[in-house]
Amino acid sequence: MSFRIEKDTMGEVQVPADKYWGAQTERSRNNFKIGPAASMPKEIIEGFAYLKKAAAYANHELGVLPIEKRDAIAAVCDEILAGELTEEFPLVIWQTGSGTQSNMNVNEVIANRAQVLAGGKIGEGEAVLKANDDVNKSQSSNDTFPTGMHIAAYKAVVEVTIPGVEKLRDTLQRKSTEFMNVVKIGRTHLMDATPITLGQELSGYVAQLNHGLKAVKNTLAHLAELALGGTAVGTGLNTPNGYDVVVAKHIATFTNLPFVTAPNKFEALAAHDAIVETHGALKQLAVSLNKIANDIRMLASGPRSGIGEILIPENEPGSSIMPGKVNPTQCEALTMVAAQVMGNDVAITIGGTQGHYELNVFKPLMAANFLQSARLIGDACVSFEEHCAIGIEPNHARIQELVNNSLMLVTALNTKIGYYKAAEIAQTAHKNNSTLKETAIALGYVTADEFDEWVKPEEMVGSLK
Amino acid sequence: MSFRIEKDTMGEVQVPADKYWGAQTERSRNNFKIGPAASMPKEIIEGFAYLKKAAAYANHELGVLPIEKRDAIAAVCDEILAGELTEEFPLVIWQTGSGTQSNMNVNEVIANRAQVLAGGKIGEGEAVLKANDDVNKSQSSNDTFPTGMHIAAYKAVVEVTIPGVEKLRDTLQRKSTEFMNVVKIGRTHLMDATPITLGQELSGYVAQLNHGLKAVKNTLAHLAELALGGTAVGTGLNTPNGYDVVVAKHIATFTNLPFVTAPNKFEALAAHDAIVETHGALKQLAVSLNKIANDIRMLASGPRSGIGEILIPENEPGSSIMPGKVNPTQCEALTMVAAQVMGNDVAITIGGTQGHYELNVFKPLMAANFLQSARLIGDACVSFEEHCAIGIEPNHARIQELVNNSLMLVTALNTKIGYYKAAEIAQTAHKNNSTLKETAIALGYVTADEFDEWVKPEEMVGSLK
Amino acid sequence: MSFRIEKDTMGEVQVPADKYWGAQTERSRNNFKIGPAASMPKEIIEGFAYLKKAAAYANHELGVLPIEKRDAIAAVCDEILAGELTEEFPLVIWQTGSGTQSNMNVNEVIANRAQVLAGGKIGEGEAVLKANDDVNKSQSSNDTFPTGMHIAAYKAVVEVTIPGVEKLRDTLQRKSTEFMNVVKIGRTHLMDATPITLGQELSGYVAQLNHGLKAVKNTLAHLAELALGGTAVGTGLNTPNGYDVVVAKHIATFTNLPFVTAPNKFEALAAHDAIVETHGALKQLAVSLNKIANDIRMLASGPRSGIGEILIPENEPGSSIMPGKVNPTQCEALTMVAAQVMGNDVAITIGGTQGHYELNVFKPLMAANFLQSARLIGDACVSFEEHCAIGIEPNHARIQELVNNSLMLVTALNTKIGYYKAAEIAQTAHKNNSTLKETAIALGYVTADEFDEWVKPEEMVGSLK
Amino acid sequence: MSFRIEKDTMGEVQVPADKYWGAQTERSRNNFKIGPAASMPKEIIEGFAYLKKAAAYANHELGVLPIEKRDAIAAVCDEILAGELTEEFPLVIWQTGSGTQSNMNVNEVIANRAQVLAGGKIGEGEAVLKANDDVNKSQSSNDTFPTGMHIAAYKAVVEVTIPGVEKLRDTLQRKSTEFMNVVKIGRTHLMDATPITLGQELSGYVAQLNHGLKAVKNTLAHLAELALGGTAVGTGLNTPNGYDVVVAKHIATFTNLPFVTAPNKFEALAAHDAIVETHGALKQLAVSLNKIANDIRMLASGPRSGIGEILIPENEPGSSIMPGKVNPTQCEALTMVAAQVMGNDVAITIGGTQGHYELNVFKPLMAANFLQSARLIGDACVSFEEHCAIGIEPNHARIQELVNNSLMLVTALNTKIGYYKAAEIAQTAHKNNSTLKETAIALGYVTADEFDEWVKPEEMVGSLK
Repeated sequence: MSFRIEKDTMGEVQVPADKYWGAQTERSRNNFKIGPAASMPKEIIEGFAYLKKAAAYANHELGVLPIEKRDAIAAVCDEILAGELTEEFPLVIWQTGSGTQSNMNVNEVIANRAQVLAGGKIGEGEAVLKANDDVNKSQSSNDTFPTGMHIAAYKAVVEVTIPGVEKLRDTLQRKSTEFMNVVKIGRTHLMDATPITLGQELSGYVAQLNHGLKAVKNTLAHLAELALGGTAVGTGLNTPNGYDVVVAKHIATFTNLPFVTAPNKFEALAAHDAIVETHGALKQLAVSLNKIANDIRMLASGPRSGIGEILIPENEPGSSIMPGKVNPTQCEALTMVAAQVMGNDVAITIGGTQGHYELNVFKPLMAANFLQSARLIGDACVSFEEHCAIGIEPNHARIQELVNNSLMLVTALNTKIGYYKAAEIAQTAHKNNSTLKETAIALGYVTADEFDEWVKPEEMVGSLK
Repeated sequence: MSFRIEKDTMGEVQVPADKYWGAQTERSRNNFKIGPAASMPKEIIEGFAYLKKAAAYANHELGVLPIEKRDAIAAVCDEILAGELTEEFPLVIWQTGSGTQSNMNVNEVIANRAQVLAGGKIGEGEAVLKANDDVNKSQSSNDTFPTGMHIAAYKAVVEVTIPGVEKLRDTLQRKSTEFMNVVKIGRTHLMDATPITLGQELSGYVAQLNHGLKAVKNTLAHLAELALGGTAVGTGLNTPNGYDVVVAKHIATFTNLPFVTAPNKFEALAAHDAIVETHGALKQLAVSLNKIANDIRMLASGPRSGIGEILIPENEPGSSIMPGKVNPTQCEALTMVAAQVMGNDVAITIGGTQGHYELNVFKPLMAANFLQSARLIGDACVSFEEHCAIGIEPNHARIQELVNNSLMLVTALNTKIGYYKAAEIAQTAHKNNSTLKETAIALGYVTADEFDEWVKPEEMVGSLK
Repeated sequence: MSFRIEKDTMGEVQVPADKYWGAQTERSRNNFKIGPAASMPKEIIEGFAYLKKAAAYANHELGVLPIEKRDAIAAVCDEILAGELTEEFPLVIWQTGSGTQSNMNVNEVIANRAQVLAGGKIGEGEAVLKANDDVNKSQSSNDTFPTGMHIAAYKAVVEVTIPGVEKLRDTLQRKSTEFMNVVKIGRTHLMDATPITLGQELSGYVAQLNHGLKAVKNTLAHLAELALGGTAVGTGLNTPNGYDVVVAKHIATFTNLPFVTAPNKFEALAAHDAIVETHGALKQLAVSLNKIANDIRMLASGPRSGIGEILIPENEPGSSIMPGKVNPTQCEALTMVAAQVMGNDVAITIGGTQGHYELNVFKPLMAANFLQSARLIGDACVSFEEHCAIGIEPNHARIQELVNNSLMLVTALNTKIGYYKAAEIAQTAHKNNSTLKETAIALGYVTADEFDEWVKPEEMVGSLK
Repeated sequence: MSFRIEKDTMGEVQVPADKYWGAQTERSRNNFKIGPAASMPKEIIEGFAYLKKAAAYANHELGVLPIEKRDAIAAVCDEILAGELTEEFPLVIWQTGSGTQSNMNVNEVIANRAQVLAGGKIGEGEAVLKANDDVNKSQSSNDTFPTGMHIAAYKAVVEVTIPGVEKLRDTLQRKSTEFMNVVKIGRTHLMDATPITLGQELSGYVAQLNHGLKAVKNTLAHLAELALGGTAVGTGLNTPNGYDVVVAKHIATFTNLPFVTAPNKFEALAAHDAIVETHGALKQLAVSLNKIANDIRMLASGPRSGIGEILIPENEPGSSIMPGKVNPTQCEALTMVAAQVMGNDVAITIGGTQGHYELNVFKPLMAANFLQSARLIGDACVSFEEHCAIGIEPNHARIQELVNNSLMLVTALNTKIGYYKAAEIAQTAHKNNSTLKETAIALGYVTADEFDEWVKPEEMVGSLK
């Protein structure tokens, strides 16, 4: 491999000749060989591209950066956003906890790439842009990384998580309406209980997801607050007057999302409670999705020795040894995602607690876990919707058989003959393996007509809407 | 001990003669000897008292319960709320996961106590109230327990957590204003950074708590939804028409809190995402409080070999072996509480995932962890405020000494001489153990006058509000 | 209430006249009103009683404490161990993170109680014992609290957790042997799979518990290491020569457990990895118990619309609204306990990470969570064994019905006709709702005799031991 | 792209013509678009290569597979182990929870690659190997995936984690010895305490890591147990006699690691407590490493306004805005890794709880989290050792200054003048900002000579070894 010499304030460094990054990126690459290379999420790099461009615009607007430099910076940012420079960001999550080195990676790539775009050669002639003095002007890693993190997180939530959950929610809503009159046995404690309809069951899932979506949305105002303008410690040192508001405006424009400058920059650097907050809501969604997926696989279990009340799509052979087996694989993927999100929540929580003084240095950890959760939930909901939820159908014969047999239909008699006598009927029928009706009559508590009049599963499910 | 015989649908049970509880409570007491006795939180019992009274009122209002029975029920509920029957609830958290046995405990105590209040003897003569048919009328454990849980949780949050956090927030706000002009060294990565004021630092904590309070409040609408009226599986079987709305109205009246009936009862029984959601926000507060308490103990560390920039109250001797030692004990209590809340969040999360079909059976676990967190946060904030935050004072001499020595004041020169030369000054001064000013002049990058003009800590902290 | 005046190095304090505690306990009681009073686990106080007595013996043995003082200290320690002074320890978990105030609580109670035992009056005349100089001689809170914590933790594990788990393991082992030939359907992915015996299923649970018990025992050597002798920072300042070994020997003798002095006292004060380690193994047991309890409730589900392959004891009425309902309540208690232990593990983990320099100040948090887990697991296993596991019985009719119907018996044909043809048989039978045998013959892949010869559930379960 | 048609028991599927995988892999690729492609860890694929080869050898040895087929399978496995087929495994973690599809991916690649190696074309002519009947012979996904998972996990722990931790431990041990006589101030509660040496402090870290390594090794016997031979449900259906022992022997030989067949296959399929157990020990290491890294950054904090007692290597510029700033970046990477491992532990714990009946279907989740933790700990320890620990040096001047000033040297007087008078000296000196010595004399408690005789920091640190 061929190399060129780059330097920073600590001296010279050999850098691969065909890469745009500079000395500090290379130092980090060598000093942090932890886990797979280039693990810093690409969404973070994109977040940086938005903010570097916005900073250039704000700096120009406020008179501290010439228009040529602004445009040179913006041109490279646009290339990054177009996905053209993906090989230029080799750093890992497990670097400095402020993400300084990824900030410098972006600064260096922008400066060197601009040199080339201007027809120059890296490191030769007059520099079109200086990484620190121009590209990083009015910025610090300490305010850029959290800004890039909020941009990436916000976008992931509104572009991947929420649409994915909504797609699943919509399908469950349709199915709920469709099956609103399918009366089936209810189950509590995993045991037979009074009747419910399949549509009612599904409506509970819809309500869970609606609550979860609302919970996520409740957190977005905090996530929309940007640290940029706080620079090193939150005081805004070395920024022109009004910069924080202007730069946030440009970020909002470029991303088309409602970002604003954080009212308190000290909080925005030293704590990442907004990440903790939104991820808390993602975790709530994970809890809900786990419940839903688990129910569906239990309801679909069988085909002959399980519950078997619903049918779900058969997507792939389920066993390498048991021929003809089909499994609820989408439920499994979704519940594994849920477990991952719950684990990520703890990693984020721990990272969030450990800010010291003016800076939290668990930023890359928090960003990486957040972005994984946001994407996994969104992707898994889409997968689950397309390959499972959309194909849910009632197994009417099985449903009918089970509801008719249920001893808990006796509950309808409570208000007629009292809880104690009703219990006696159920217990006796259970012991004798007989039907409720014959037992009720045999015990002399009701007549056959009364029983038929009072015990109607379809009238035990309340109003159906 | 003397006993009386009580019975339920399974048969007879010996119950201590001096207690109001009945057969089902006694069965549970014997079958679940897990952990300390009577661990079911008293707040849950109070929640039950509110809802039993409200159910009696709703049942009467809707024509299914005579006024005498309503008033008999309400009278005992009022006694429970007055704290007069605390010895009557001996059950543990670790019982059935629906809390059925605690529901029956309340039903039995109300029925038997009413018998005595009416001048009767337990188990003799005509029963004033029947535990199942009257006290539990239009109810099931499956909707009462989550209702009691929401009442208890909501009350704890608004009566203990929020006021405690606000009290601390207010004091930190006052201190922030008071110390807004105390210029001190900033620290990032635990290392010296550019200046900040003590008031600015504290303002970050205030912002954290304000965000946390807002996050908690965002969740309250979900927590205000009550399951009552869903009965066994969410269908509302055996409830009079309109009951759910009416009973929620009475609960709102009795508690003076904005409770409403849950729009979807299936969700309200089978999932406890509202508990997950609000506790997620409590966990966010724990994260914030951990950061704040940890900063304060580091800033107060010393007295001679630490940071020592602030003074905090000396409340108690700190060591049984080191005479004269004083420690940041309130910070320690608060960070231990934070760790507990983070652990509780995982217990609640796991409980929340495991609803099956129509019922989540981790209710007592979720309730107990939630109530512990809500109380600990509130109590610990009050304790921290009264015994620590209120007494925070700057150690002016120490602050002045450190800020004057700081190499990071060099950052003010970035915009004058560029990042590279500024770095050289700082590195040289560090190596030579010299001052920034003498090094800057020696390197020939600035004059003495320029240095004094450009490097002013008090002008490096931005606007102070 | 009447008071007396006590004092410490900070001055005078009013203390309830009828209590033995002194100034520092009272300060803590007033300064830490967080959560319920007296929450510091009594097991910790007992641990202190053992170590104070052992320290007195060691101090005497090494010539720094007269025999009269040794015996005066030991006499009160014996009273504490006999449970006679339980009202004298009013402090909470949420105090200083070193537990200093509980150490002083014990010192003060011992000194004042000794005064009374000697016929004196508290605070009057010559002091029989001085709290700091005598009772706390050769000690610091920093080494006493972790010592008390290890004593309490070790005892809880070997006296409550392990016996409880072993009791359950033994019963499951007996049941496994008893049901070793009960051939039933196996289930993977919740779906029908090839046969297994009920005894084999239970043997998996036994293996889990055996592994868990071994994992716990593997950690005990670390937990047996005692910090005592390290005093303030681990250097053993102010202890006589050889003290650490001697005092550990006395603790081992008094507790009849294999305690030793920690080879490295710095680790023993500054980190509590032994607590983290053993609780990690408790968490593993929780994971296993969750699996077992969940399986059992699914296998017992029904009675008419679930799996219903096993019967478990009916211990209490299961519903306040559904007459005759019986639920797997012991499974629910056990899985709630499991969730609690998993949450506690996170609290302990977080506490364990946050030692600073020479001391970890999350000691009471870690101790309280550990002791709760140890007790809950032990208690819940005993409860589960006595009220559930011991009564597990196969529902032979149901088991037979399900195994005969299973399509996965087709797997036996893999080695005869290949996976593809076997799959075709299973899929066709499933589609046509026909039996495997008639389908196999209809497709022409086997004769009736071959089918009967090759497909025998009882020969598909491997060797039974 | 060009395609070929592959088929499985469900029908035909289009597969990219240049890939070796078959129908089931392709189905999975299309059905599970969740997160980044090909996320299934390559270590798992390698684990499969070992086990497929071993199964072929065992099948041949036991007479059920011809030698040609054995060698054809082994040849492709060797290619996989040589890293030559990395593009052939496109599946994700978030697939079926049994990992069936990754098992089939391996089966299909082996069969098709063998066809090509034999000079044939995929899907044409007589098949050299059949994916299910030959490559998967005597196997099921249900026993292969956990076997591959244990192989991968065991290898990662002994090849990456343990060597990395040992490397760091060795360097800390060397530094501890080197600095054993460097007397410095101790700190408890972050406050000044009695003296300690730098070597003693470091010895505590060494003890932590030694305990952690021992804890990990304690778990390896469980991790060495292999599920292979259990096939579908643990009964070993369709395996030749003695197969489980023979196949484990071959795996042990091929990997040169002490693998054995699991004594209980039901546990080995339905639970993954061995993964939970070993990861619990990895989490303990994370707790220890967090403590160590956090201490080191606090001790190195400054350069002028922190603790500053040690110097660590300056590896890269620390700030994009503050010139000359250097940060404890390796400490930050290591503590972020610790937080990740703690989060992963929760994901694994949750996955571990959710086995149902004969199978745990959270296998890929558990494997992925485990392998990430094992690698991150190992890598981060190496990075931390090479770029931080190896360069730790005492800042003697600073250390001397702080120890001389300390008020806690007064503790040495406890045994001479008693705790109370010693406290008075320390408090008075603190109040008057005077030295201990002048205060002690002024108060008349000691003479100057006594003070010098009794208060010697270097004699307050105990025996140094």
